[in-house]
Amino acid sequence: MSEHFSFTEHRRLPGMAARRGRIDTPHGSIETPEFLPVGTMATVKGMMPRDLEALGAQGMLSNTYHLYLRPGADVVEEFGGLHNFMNWKRPVMTDSGGFQAFSLGSAREHGVGKIGVFPGHGNPLAGRPAGWAEEALAHIDEDGVSFRSHLDGSKHRLNPEISIRIQEQLGADMILAFDECTSPMASYEYTAQALERTHRWAVRCLEARRDTPQALYGIVQGGEWQDLRERSVEFIGSLPFQGLAIGGSLGKSKQDMHRVLDWTVPGLPSDRPRHLLGIGEVDDLFECVERGIDTFDCVIPTRFARTANLFVPFGTEGASKRGTLVLRHTIHARDQRPVDPDCECYCCRNFSRAYLRHLFKADEILAYVLGTIHNLHFMLKLMRTIRASLDDGTFPELKARWLSRRDPEPA
Amino acid sequence: MSEHFSFTEHRRLPGMAARRGRIDTPHGSIETPEFLPVGTMATVKGMMPRDLEALGAQGMLSNTYHLYLRPGADVVEEFGGLHNFMNWKRPVMTDSGGFQAFSLGSAREHGVGKIGVFPGHGNPLAGRPAGWAEEALAHIDEDGVSFRSHLDGSKHRLNPEISIRIQEQLGADMILAFDECTSPMASYEYTAQALERTHRWAVRCLEARRDTPQALYGIVQGGEWQDLRERSVEFIGSLPFQGLAIGGSLGKSKQDMHRVLDWTVPGLPSDRPRHLLGIGEVDDLFECVERGIDTFDCVIPTRFARTANLFVPFGTEGASKRGTLVLRHTIHARDQRPVDPDCECYCCRNFSRAYLRHLFKADEILAYVLGTIHNLHFMLKLMRTIRASLDDGTFPELKARWLSRRDPEPA
Repeated sequence: MSEHFSFTEHRRLPGMAARRGRIDTPHGSIETPEFLPVGTMATVKGMMPRDLEALGAQGMLSNTYHLYLRPGADVVEEFGGLHNFMNWKRPVMTDSGGFQAFSLGSAREHGVGKIGVFPGHGNPLAGRPAGWAEEALAHIDEDGVSFRSHLDGSKHRLNPEISIRIQEQLGADMILAFDECTSPMASYEYTAQALERTHRWAVRCLEARRDTPQALYGIVQGGEWQDLRERSVEFIGSLPFQGLAIGGSLGKSKQDMHRVLDWTVPGLPSDRPRHLLGIGEVDDLFECVERGIDTFDCVIPTRFARTANLFVPFGTEGASKRGTLVLRHTIHARDQRPVDPDCECYCCRNFSRAYLRHLFKADEILAYVLGTIHNLHFMLKLMRTIRASLDDGTFPELKARWLSRRDPEPA
Repeated sequence: MSEHFSFTEHRRLPGMAARRGRIDTPHGSIETPEFLPVGTMATVKGMMPRDLEALGAQGMLSNTYHLYLRPGADVVEEFGGLHNFMNWKRPVMTDSGGFQAFSLGSAREHGVGKIGVFPGHGNPLAGRPAGWAEEALAHIDEDGVSFRSHLDGSKHRLNPEISIRIQEQLGADMILAFDECTSPMASYEYTAQALERTHRWAVRCLEARRDTPQALYGIVQGGEWQDLRERSVEFIGSLPFQGLAIGGSLGKSKQDMHRVLDWTVPGLPSDRPRHLLGIGEVDDLFECVERGIDTFDCVIPTRFARTANLFVPFGTEGASKRGTLVLRHTIHARDQRPVDPDCECYCCRNFSRAYLRHLFKADEILAYVLGTIHNLHFMLKLMRTIRASLDDGTFPELKARWLSRRDPEPA
């Protein structure tokens, strides 16, 4: 283990931004590209740390907003940080808390996600003025954001200095600058203003940080506008951050997201790792690795598991468009096959679709545990396969093979 | 592994009914006395089978009523029985379904448990006529019971032949005769009538059973009346059951339960294992082992875990009268100690009271998983200790040492 944070690029594919690398942290290394499971409340839902380690998870992301509210950053600090508190010995990343402070009072209740509007929610924001987010539970000013807790309505304040201080108390290996994540519904003018403010906050984050072994990541914003993204890449990339994250609205479709990455990644200094916030699904991993992303975090594998959506390779009989079997369906009631006969996870080696359906229907804890094991195994194995294909140069073929079996995208 | 069911008594303590033994089944042996965790829905809540095995659980009990309703006995039968369905390779016992059929529509909603009335429920049955149970969702007649599902209100019927047939489909190693478990509020007259009916049902169960490797247990009833219990012991003990269970109301206090056992166990043929249904807590294990019980099943360790009640030795600082730490209490918010510093379980070796409290407050799955691991480890280790003390003759001292630290019993 290294005392300090560093990033090493092992190999880049010819004519592509895709790359193999390694992040070293005081709590061990992360071979990249890699997916980091999300442990919002200092636990990856349903997973004992020993099981998460056995799945090969190299790191995880935990959420500053949630931990600040409960149990409180001071409690975690008394334990010497998150690693000790939750007994997870491998690298941890924390976000800045800004996204949740802004969004739990606004975006979530309006059905807005990182890419466009959540399916099934319609567009409740149609006709809203630019800057709608300021009208909700969170109030943004030049200094930071005031918000109310989603738990008890109590008033709180986050700004760059407070966010950095909390993240130092939490003690993650990789921490994120405090930024404003604008809505996909925000106007160009609002997004541009927010971007300038985020840049001023980035400088304040660097000034606020103390001398810890933590790596501070800057965050590129700019919504879905090329000039704003390029301006942000230039500014954030010029600052002495140890890592670079891409945040904010990534547009209204996956194609929009790919364009944002194409505007963003090539301008970033290549000596620092690149994290894509809050993405992704299986196809996203291929598309974003191709565009040079090194690490991902996303609740999808764990949240899908809790809704009985278990990953299978695209093209599997009965699979949904998102590449899952929906285990609650009656069709599985007597099916003695595992979710994926080719999968080596504990769930697939030991349990049938019928048993899993029974557990999901009965709302049994074991359903969520086994589903999470399977989905995380699936994602982490896919990342291992992707890394191997970058090592031997076969990534383009691997991507083509996986995505060719996918249903045509609905959008 | 034995093809057939058998019971061997290794040793009996002088002047006591307490004994060490072994039950052999087609799915392995159970060293007795032993506690069987309850897996109502074909899963011990929150436990992967591999973790339950690692805890040393030698067997488990699953519930016929629940599995009959969901997923259905025919589904389990298609898998070749519960062992395959839930991937649990060690012995399984199923109950007859009668207790739930009678009680889910009556006893549960009236707050009646196996010993008296649940604390905090008052006595909603005061003034009710004897036989009140027949007025609820279940209707008992000479042949069996008609009841409505607690899930969807659909009508169902159980009688001795149907119960045995379902239990054969479920394929447990030890199955139970279909009986009527009378309420602690039932009169002598009603209990006596129910007992005679239960005895007629016992004969029908023996006649209904097919030639399977399953061991059929008869059930002694008779409520809290000595003459009824003795009549039942004589009758049930005279039939060719392979095991003997003690069921029904065990009175209104723990002292009542001890008296019932004192009237019951000495008259039972000693060549067959004795199971006490639905008991117990830590002190119960000592008292009932002393009185000659070989196996127990009870939801307490698993249910307590899900209510943040984690077992500690009697007399532990801050422990409840029931011998638990209540992890939701504020007092644990910053406590870096494990639940029990002397405990070797995964929960105690790796996590603090503060972290567990955080998980319980946040309603995280991991709270229930870790709590269950601890409570089952506690119970199963206690049973191992009790077995060792029977082997070397120190059981009386062990019991005295454990129970001397207990708070005086409230009743």
